[in-house]
Amino acid sequence: MDLDPYGRREFFAGAGGLFVCTLAGQKVLTDRGADVERLAADVPVPPKVRAAEAGGAAAGGPAARPTLAKAVGARREYWIRAEEVRWNIVPTGRDAMMDRKIKAKAKFTAFAYRPYSPGFEQPLGPATVPGPLIECETGDTVVVNFQNKLPSPVTIHPHGIFYTQEMDGAYKGRHTDPGGFVQKNRTFQYVWDAREGTEGAWLYHDHGPLDPLPVYKGLFGPLIVRKAGAPRPDREFFLAFHSFQPPATDLKRAFSCVNGRAYAGNTPTLHAAAGERVAWHVYAIDNDFHTFHIHGHRWVDPDGGKVIDNQTLGPGDSISAYYVEDNPGRWFYHCHVFSHLHEGMNGWYLVGG
Amino acid sequence: MDLDPYGRREFFAGAGGLFVCTLAGQKVLTDRGADVERLAADVPVPPKVRAAEAGGAAAGGPAARPTLAKAVGARREYWIRAEEVRWNIVPTGRDAMMDRKIKAKAKFTAFAYRPYSPGFEQPLGPATVPGPLIECETGDTVVVNFQNKLPSPVTIHPHGIFYTQEMDGAYKGRHTDPGGFVQKNRTFQYVWDAREGTEGAWLYHDHGPLDPLPVYKGLFGPLIVRKAGAPRPDREFFLAFHSFQPPATDLKRAFSCVNGRAYAGNTPTLHAAAGERVAWHVYAIDNDFHTFHIHGHRWVDPDGGKVIDNQTLGPGDSISAYYVEDNPGRWFYHCHVFSHLHEGMNGWYLVGG
Amino acid sequence: MDLDPYGRREFFAGAGGLFVCTLAGQKVLTDRGADVERLAADVPVPPKVRAAEAGGAAAGGPAARPTLAKAVGARREYWIRAEEVRWNIVPTGRDAMMDRKIKAKAKFTAFAYRPYSPGFEQPLGPATVPGPLIECETGDTVVVNFQNKLPSPVTIHPHGIFYTQEMDGAYKGRHTDPGGFVQKNRTFQYVWDAREGTEGAWLYHDHGPLDPLPVYKGLFGPLIVRKAGAPRPDREFFLAFHSFQPPATDLKRAFSCVNGRAYAGNTPTLHAAAGERVAWHVYAIDNDFHTFHIHGHRWVDPDGGKVIDNQTLGPGDSISAYYVEDNPGRWFYHCHVFSHLHEGMNGWYLVGG
Repeated sequence: MDLDPYGRREFFAGAGGLFVCTLAGQKVLTDRGADVERLAADVPVPPKVRAAEAGGAAAGGPAARPTLAKAVGARREYWIRAEEVRWNIVPTGRDAMMDRKIKAKAKFTAFAYRPYSPGFEQPLGPATVPGPLIECETGDTVVVNFQNKLPSPVTIHPHGIFYTQEMDGAYKGRHTDPGGFVQKNRTFQYVWDAREGTEGAWLYHDHGPLDPLPVYKGLFGPLIVRKAGAPRPDREFFLAFHSFQPPATDLKRAFSCVNGRAYAGNTPTLHAAAGERVAWHVYAIDNDFHTFHIHGHRWVDPDGGKVIDNQTLGPGDSISAYYVEDNPGRWFYHCHVFSHLHEGMNGWYLVGG
Repeated sequence: MDLDPYGRREFFAGAGGLFVCTLAGQKVLTDRGADVERLAADVPVPPKVRAAEAGGAAAGGPAARPTLAKAVGARREYWIRAEEVRWNIVPTGRDAMMDRKIKAKAKFTAFAYRPYSPGFEQPLGPATVPGPLIECETGDTVVVNFQNKLPSPVTIHPHGIFYTQEMDGAYKGRHTDPGGFVQKNRTFQYVWDAREGTEGAWLYHDHGPLDPLPVYKGLFGPLIVRKAGAPRPDREFFLAFHSFQPPATDLKRAFSCVNGRAYAGNTPTLHAAAGERVAWHVYAIDNDFHTFHIHGHRWVDPDGGKVIDNQTLGPGDSISAYYVEDNPGRWFYHCHVFSHLHEGMNGWYLVGG
Repeated sequence: MDLDPYGRREFFAGAGGLFVCTLAGQKVLTDRGADVERLAADVPVPPKVRAAEAGGAAAGGPAARPTLAKAVGARREYWIRAEEVRWNIVPTGRDAMMDRKIKAKAKFTAFAYRPYSPGFEQPLGPATVPGPLIECETGDTVVVNFQNKLPSPVTIHPHGIFYTQEMDGAYKGRHTDPGGFVQKNRTFQYVWDAREGTEGAWLYHDHGPLDPLPVYKGLFGPLIVRKAGAPRPDREFFLAFHSFQPPATDLKRAFSCVNGRAYAGNTPTLHAAAGERVAWHVYAIDNDFHTFHIHGHRWVDPDGGKVIDNQTLGPGDSISAYYVEDNPGRWFYHCHVFSHLHEGMNGWYLVGG
């Protein structure tokens, strides 16, 4: 008896046979885009956020920064803005793996974290899905000046790195701190602490009051805490396994994606050369479980001595694969869940001799 | 090509567009509660169970206990009764994470394992989902006197601990032993052996002839085999990640639960203090895969040296997270599968300074 | 908000309420069998494959074999043919776990890898799902002469073992090598290299232009690279956790399978004796995640020191469980995903005293 497919949602069949779920108290057709502004209008400002505003203090800002007694390394400061961006999931219009045209419309207005120069003077590049890599070493303090230009409150919630509860970036209902509810046009300064024991490849993502809709629209990115002084790999890849679904895109169909794109030739085409030390950092950030597979390669599970070439990861998980490149050629990396693979979750990995 | 959502069941669309599956040979509407008594009436008594009855021997009982040569420690004896209990999945009527009212009806008649004093003299507390913690150390013998007051045969099947085939608590068709088919008003004595090499945090659950319906109604609980003499953590949490679905509850919607409750404020609110050694033991016991995430904390994977803050677990899996508390504040723990999170699978974790 | 069940496919409701997905550019009813010949007819021959044909060279063949400088051990040569086979998923017509009749039709025309004597002189046994075990030790060269008698191009793509890109057995659109597109009645010789560092229990499967349909019809099998000189276990079991779904079988319902069969008594009944060193090698090769559970037994996670009796594995994953048998009796092994368990993914494990 499989109770899931129908039980797992607050749903019912609506007019015209459409399926509906409840999000932020409103019915949302699961094959139509959700109206973020309307949803956002119904979310009240939490008391601590209102108090911070009434006190005249900017939500967040240097005054709100806690003392970080343990920080002994560098201060890594980022300026990141959440913006809308017109996004093409399949820029080539083709699936190179199956050598076929993708006829379905694949452009929509995504939500993206975009990096800026200090003081938000100018963008450091286009807005992309995922957002910029946040990188640091153990001992560092990471400071993220976060500005929201989206039509709903959003946040940045990091994984792995140390943060106090005020720097959690999570909406907590009536207990929400200003960092968990960054309204449109406001700025909040997150300060995180890359303590010893937080090393690893992680992710960050929105955890605001409209969760998971902004995440489903592209509001996530990679974060790495490197062991101070440890040698860098020669090649380092950061990949998000996720999907773009109709309620988040208003498109007719779903796409299974790597870093915001679907199908080889659109997803990242990655390069390495024989002899190089290669690191893959893969995280999953949709509602599904995935497996990460690379053709022609294998690695030792960081959690033990087992040789693997395929690894399970679920929502919020991040895994790493390390090896010395020994196999020139044209390869695929992909999710081995067949429906994800054929819905776009694959890419080229090209190794020079 | 995703073959799952429709292929994974013996189902078809019934009158009025309702979906149906087959359970114990009968059609069950997946959005209506299954009729346990009617289903149970159709299950024949297995031959070995009938023989035990005919022989005048109580099913189970001390005479049926095998010699446990390896037991060198204490005898831990439990009296546990399977009962119906009127259960409220959302006692506060609210979702504290999203600060919203839960309007849907959330009360139903659950199945629960309830602890009693010796001889079933008096209950040691109310019937709850999950059932009581069964705890022991390596070297101990665990004796569970199990009495069934439910309208169908049910059992206790443990994970991890050593048990002979008669003590398996699993329905095996014509090969079923009395411990795999404990009928209404009967008592069976399970004897398990916490041998060296069985240490870990486990679970127990019904594995009788109506499986998985009794499990889906709440018939599961935690079991721990501690290494004899090993120091205890200062705080120890046992959490079941599961769901209550309409066919098991006769409710209009599904709930994603931790320990029988849905939504922060209803699920366990857990407490710890800075400096304490904290252990989380989490098991999954529904049809889904989950990931376990704690905000503001991370731990070393017991299976290796990797630092993690999010971990996948599937049905029947149990995982443990150990750390020394270093981060006071108000935190969430939750399943990172977004649909589960927003259907209730989250809770508060409050850390004092 | 669960976006998956409907978003995860290119589907829409067709006439008569049937659901449809797109495979190789054609609409396929998800409750009817796909027409392989029609689908195959639309796949163009990739340029490198056409060039190999035009050059008069047999696709594959000894001439195409790359030099394998590292091979120091034995040459293990296999002759494997892909064939159709009339396959009965439930030969006994019964589910021994629940002691019930399985009334649904369970015969269909499967795709199978069948082992032959050298030169394809004669079959070494009947065609089966899964295909034959491919086994070798580190240092060996594995040579698989692969002949296709199926109505569509198919391949053999191995996991874990070393192979150059020409020996990948993967369809790569316009970049496809002859080994990634073995047409009907053609033969290709795969040469793989069991280098140090590739040891483990793996799988192989079709990865051709109709992927995943041939896999879903049974085109997969086990592969093991043993550490040279390492002692063998006394008992070694190779199990595929997979499913047969209506689009692949044209049957009315889905079956959850172990090695091509559903329900205890049809799936492998495995035997061991107390004192024996037992190894289970389990891989997942459908669209689902599974957990592997053995009653009455536990093992140490090869990835660490944790004792487990239940383990998650996703599509393409392979896991191994090793222990010394200490518990005589009649046991189940099964997937602990309840809907899979009750759809057939379980079997008997019989241990002698």
